[in-house]
Amino acid sequence: MIRTLFWKNNSVVMIDQNALPQIERPVVCADYRQVIAAIRDLTVRGAPAIGVAAAMGAALGALTLPPQPPEAFRDKFQAICDEIAAARPTARNLFWALERMKKRLDEVLRGQTKNPAAALVQEARRMCAEDIAVNREMGRRGSELLSDGDHVLTHCNAGALATAGYGTALGVIRAAVAEGKKLHVYVDETRPVLQGARLTAWEMKKEKIPATLICDNMAGMLMRQGKIDKVIVGADRIAANGDAANKIGTYALAVLARAHRIPFYIAAPLSTFDFSLTTGAEIPIEERQADEVTTFRGVAAAPQGMAVYNPAFDVTPARLISAIVTEKGILTKPGRAAIARLKRSVAL
Amino acid sequence: MIRTLFWKNNSVVMIDQNALPQIERPVVCADYRQVIAAIRDLTVRGAPAIGVAAAMGAALGALTLPPQPPEAFRDKFQAICDEIAAARPTARNLFWALERMKKRLDEVLRGQTKNPAAALVQEARRMCAEDIAVNREMGRRGSELLSDGDHVLTHCNAGALATAGYGTALGVIRAAVAEGKKLHVYVDETRPVLQGARLTAWEMKKEKIPATLICDNMAGMLMRQGKIDKVIVGADRIAANGDAANKIGTYALAVLARAHRIPFYIAAPLSTFDFSLTTGAEIPIEERQADEVTTFRGVAAAPQGMAVYNPAFDVTPARLISAIVTEKGILTKPGRAAIARLKRSVAL
Repeated sequence: MIRTLFWKNNSVVMIDQNALPQIERPVVCADYRQVIAAIRDLTVRGAPAIGVAAAMGAALGALTLPPQPPEAFRDKFQAICDEIAAARPTARNLFWALERMKKRLDEVLRGQTKNPAAALVQEARRMCAEDIAVNREMGRRGSELLSDGDHVLTHCNAGALATAGYGTALGVIRAAVAEGKKLHVYVDETRPVLQGARLTAWEMKKEKIPATLICDNMAGMLMRQGKIDKVIVGADRIAANGDAANKIGTYALAVLARAHRIPFYIAAPLSTFDFSLTTGAEIPIEERQADEVTTFRGVAAAPQGMAVYNPAFDVTPARLISAIVTEKGILTKPGRAAIARLKRSVAL
Repeated sequence: MIRTLFWKNNSVVMIDQNALPQIERPVVCADYRQVIAAIRDLTVRGAPAIGVAAAMGAALGALTLPPQPPEAFRDKFQAICDEIAAARPTARNLFWALERMKKRLDEVLRGQTKNPAAALVQEARRMCAEDIAVNREMGRRGSELLSDGDHVLTHCNAGALATAGYGTALGVIRAAVAEGKKLHVYVDETRPVLQGARLTAWEMKKEKIPATLICDNMAGMLMRQGKIDKVIVGADRIAANGDAANKIGTYALAVLARAHRIPFYIAAPLSTFDFSLTTGAEIPIEERQADEVTTFRGVAAAPQGMAVYNPAFDVTPARLISAIVTEKGILTKPGRAAIARLKRSVAL
């Protein structure tokens, strides 16, 4: 099993996702600022994995705080969390994880624990384990959407590497394969950072799931040829009306899927939902540096100084999403009502 | 002005398009087999440029033939043309150019010319000059489709580099800019071979036409944001019903344009029309080698041995094409009737 990141000897150990697939090597972060850098430079990426990394980063930060009165400890920890929160803007899980860590600290401080940092480390490790469990539950519930013989298109990497392990969209695929369904996965290479070509392809090869790599612009032709039965992707943030931010290119896929009457599914844990946002228009979309587009691993493609637009995400409106798989069940025709029900079920 | 290829001292001189944009250098082909290799490896690409290269290649081949009876000369020339025709399967202009060269040889042989090869060289050079004139005429006619202030998306390179000079889709943009219209061009990078990032971006910078490079999967988001007013691309082959083969990804753009009510235009000379094909389903689609997808300018992206599907073209059905710009005029709602009229106008 792929363990994307884990806690070991008061450090966070991550698979270096920038080195994959050619080199499999760990990166060890002993300081929370290294975790921030790893989130920023995509050493660790994928909304759930970013969430776990943020929690572990906050725990690392707490370990550096000397004994001090609860209020002072809380303020220092808050400052560390604020720094981590600034690493990337779009993935909801980053903020969700930090909120949970702060809430845990409040509980701990109310209990007058001697060692709040140890409790925060424990909480971060629990979140890591829970993430895998949540993904397995999504897989178990979502696999019914995939049929034996299906050709399934996925975009970016919503796999083990996007989470603590197992994956969201690829978790659903894994679960269906484990049930004995024969699937063929089409993997969008996912420019500019090529998470599909580098990471999803690597996961599919590792697990011997039959898969074919394509360029993003080929998906439309494949749909027209009848070669795609379903599309399933992850998400970085889902608004209260079901609009979902995910890797750039997801929206175009959803439009193409609709035009070809192909079901378009999202798999995302509850920690990806942002019930405070009325619609997807409120989701902040990260724009990343131009050289992600103009170069690949240092090799230039475009003329020097070429102007570039490089949004890392786009928003798919709920009306184009056939269903959202969560660990609490499948939301079919996900809209404001379905998500309000989901929110109530969590609050209970 | 960019001269993509020209005849000089019994050689074909081409811009090495694989070296662009970092290196501007000519490739000199003194032998027709070098021209075939240059077409195959994309040193010269773009349907009209391939047509001119094929004609010049055939002329180079004719120059190698010793004096012999007309029938023998014709057979040898036919064999050379057959070799050239096998270079790439999709672009209509390749076959059109060779047919024209063979027809010219028949005329010449009927006239009992002493030096048929010289007449073939002359014909190839004429076709080169005509291609530029045709593009300018398309530009003159097509520019009315673009308005001052338009943001225009283009895919692949349908520019000077795809032709003998001036370009088809970019020719229309050039003509509109020359008329004083302010345009902003969005350039799809066009995976896997990056003709947009490498070639269209280079042309736009060279002519100081404001342009922004994007990844192919970003076009849908831009359309949703209202940032694209028109789409204009070239074509490699157009069937009698208006279905058009063009660079992979064109079909998806056409679907997206329709979903966002954005006009989708094609600019292509008559030599790109294949009146013998009832629909686009009959257009042969070239599949190219996997390493175009698994590597990025020689740098590996995907895991070794990853399965790949790499069609170089797709077919856009006529119903998604708002208009086709030709040197004979603009076909609005291009369908079987409009193209039959076009064919008759040519036959006259």
